[in-house]
Amino acid sequence: MTDVDYGARLDRARKELERLDADVLVVSLGSDLPYLTGYRAMPLERLTMAVVPREGEPLLIVPELEAPRVRVRSGVFAIRAWAETEDPIEIVVSRIGTSRMVLIGDQTWAVFLLRLQEKLPDTRFRSARELSAALRVVKDPAEIDLLRRAGVIADGVAARLATHRFTGETELQVSQMVGEMVKAGGNESADFAIVGSGPNGASPHHDPGDRRIDSGDPIVIDFGGRYHGYSSDTTRMFHVGKPSRRYLEVHAVVLDAQQAAVDAVRPGVSAESVDAAARRVISEAGYGDYFVHRTGHGIGMDTHEDPYIVAGNTQLLEPGMVFSIEPGIYLPGEFGVRIEDIVVCTGDGAERLNNSPREVVIVD
Amino acid sequence: MTDVDYGARLDRARKELERLDADVLVVSLGSDLPYLTGYRAMPLERLTMAVVPREGEPLLIVPELEAPRVRVRSGVFAIRAWAETEDPIEIVVSRIGTSRMVLIGDQTWAVFLLRLQEKLPDTRFRSARELSAALRVVKDPAEIDLLRRAGVIADGVAARLATHRFTGETELQVSQMVGEMVKAGGNESADFAIVGSGPNGASPHHDPGDRRIDSGDPIVIDFGGRYHGYSSDTTRMFHVGKPSRRYLEVHAVVLDAQQAAVDAVRPGVSAESVDAAARRVISEAGYGDYFVHRTGHGIGMDTHEDPYIVAGNTQLLEPGMVFSIEPGIYLPGEFGVRIEDIVVCTGDGAERLNNSPREVVIVD
Repeated sequence: MTDVDYGARLDRARKELERLDADVLVVSLGSDLPYLTGYRAMPLERLTMAVVPREGEPLLIVPELEAPRVRVRSGVFAIRAWAETEDPIEIVVSRIGTSRMVLIGDQTWAVFLLRLQEKLPDTRFRSARELSAALRVVKDPAEIDLLRRAGVIADGVAARLATHRFTGETELQVSQMVGEMVKAGGNESADFAIVGSGPNGASPHHDPGDRRIDSGDPIVIDFGGRYHGYSSDTTRMFHVGKPSRRYLEVHAVVLDAQQAAVDAVRPGVSAESVDAAARRVISEAGYGDYFVHRTGHGIGMDTHEDPYIVAGNTQLLEPGMVFSIEPGIYLPGEFGVRIEDIVVCTGDGAERLNNSPREVVIVD
Repeated sequence: MTDVDYGARLDRARKELERLDADVLVVSLGSDLPYLTGYRAMPLERLTMAVVPREGEPLLIVPELEAPRVRVRSGVFAIRAWAETEDPIEIVVSRIGTSRMVLIGDQTWAVFLLRLQEKLPDTRFRSARELSAALRVVKDPAEIDLLRRAGVIADGVAARLATHRFTGETELQVSQMVGEMVKAGGNESADFAIVGSGPNGASPHHDPGDRRIDSGDPIVIDFGGRYHGYSSDTTRMFHVGKPSRRYLEVHAVVLDAQQAAVDAVRPGVSAESVDAAARRVISEAGYGDYFVHRTGHGIGMDTHEDPYIVAGNTQLLEPGMVFSIEPGIYLPGEFGVRIEDIVVCTGDGAERLNNSPREVVIVD
């Protein structure tokens, strides 16, 4: 990410401010900050905040003790380091000045928004989400390349898992191992590794625990990391020993649903129609009540971002949008099945960024 | 943490609402939620929020796909799972009703606060920080015991590092190893592992990178994890080969400053006076300009929480408060030194929860 044109990103942010009739953008936690500045803030009580006025110099306000590591990365932003006995909100307030309308990053902590509102009673604050989506929802070729490489790393992890012996290990042990594989593959971080075995797979975001994996268990493994700032997110199913006919049936339904959703992707179709394509297959098979989440979410510098592939989202897909397609069926007390790939909307369809086998992988 | 009395914690939260003349508490991300409910939310766009009215039933609002893993832990809260096509803000709004004054958890995302404010124009929102501190700043004996055990694990990591051969390894390799040690010691997570070698140590929160550690390097290692929900945070200095006289002098100053701050801790003294005790030693030695951060921060379920040991904080220490004491000297282009222990304010002084050697540890 050394050749990112931060100046061009700043120009686009300013054009969006103009389009949205807002005067200033302020962003803190989340990925708008690294998208614009190359710097990701830690989720701490010491405020880090970028202030981007529609005109005039953009400023990155950072705690003094973070400043040495910020200077080496930032490009077009001036840096203002605040000392431990200063109030950084006052610095932000002086930059916002008499602006009427400020867009504020979604993940900014409420405590900071409340203080800004208190100090600036005549200023209106609105969510920066629309600006953020306009900047980031369509990925450029360099971003897609990083997401593609992140996908290749994930495929490598899935391939290693296909030859792993799970029997006798706890979910937690497997989760830690997956996390190590995610890092060993070349990611800078392992962000999550859900391992839901047997009936635990029926909880979509199960916390891996002490349950020992045994013969006959289906295992949901959903893992992700970050490669040069870009996220991966993949789910594959493993089955210890011979699967039951019921398992095979449910797996086949989810696989068909996933394929149907991928097939539905092309420019100009709505996000919700991709969700509907997966849901139709699952509902027609009689499992509609057991598909308890949306079909997918955008992915980029955040693991979850626009576009959300969910009923009610009429947003039209465009080439360069990248998102997950991850239908699932969750049968309480029995098991769960989820199959997830990241896909890119291309000029005429979808490119999958995950290509490891989606069929039932039998393991020991 | 299976024997926590969540009912008692809820009663205390309600008493605080009364004292602060507020009607409702809403909390989302951060540690107020697990403190009150036993459940920690993931930092995601799907809202998880607890609503605690001064009177009436408290409610924990969770995404439907998280619900299976929430039910097993929550005690006194009713659970309301929201489906993917519902708007969870509407559920919160209906619970807040006609309340005049709502306290909102500091780490709640701005996007949710903005939506609540939009839907409830006649309701005043204030930071829940004062309530949160009142609940959590003094730890009970069970909490102190967990923090003590977290400290023992950290001491074990420091002991292992004292016999490690660093020469030729990159900071990133060492950081990953420290993270593994933090987990292997019994923590459920490794939260951070700063490794700043040679001149990189002069950046207090240096990102471990590709720099290879060599003979003559001082190394700042600052690491922490979470044990049964409670955080650790420890910094120790290692030196590859024989230290220079200048290094030894600076290390001795930081060690004296750390001891002076620990000696200053007792009930009834202000947080800022503990900061001043460390700062005085460093300033008198001529390094005042190079101690660029506060002396410490409270620690508990959050790694950083009240009480902050910083100039301007006149809060008086009480038995059961737990915080870090971590003075440092940072010499740009040369090296940095930081020494950090977690301490508990006792009836008549301080108990250190970290007890591995603070002197210069010579390594290969």
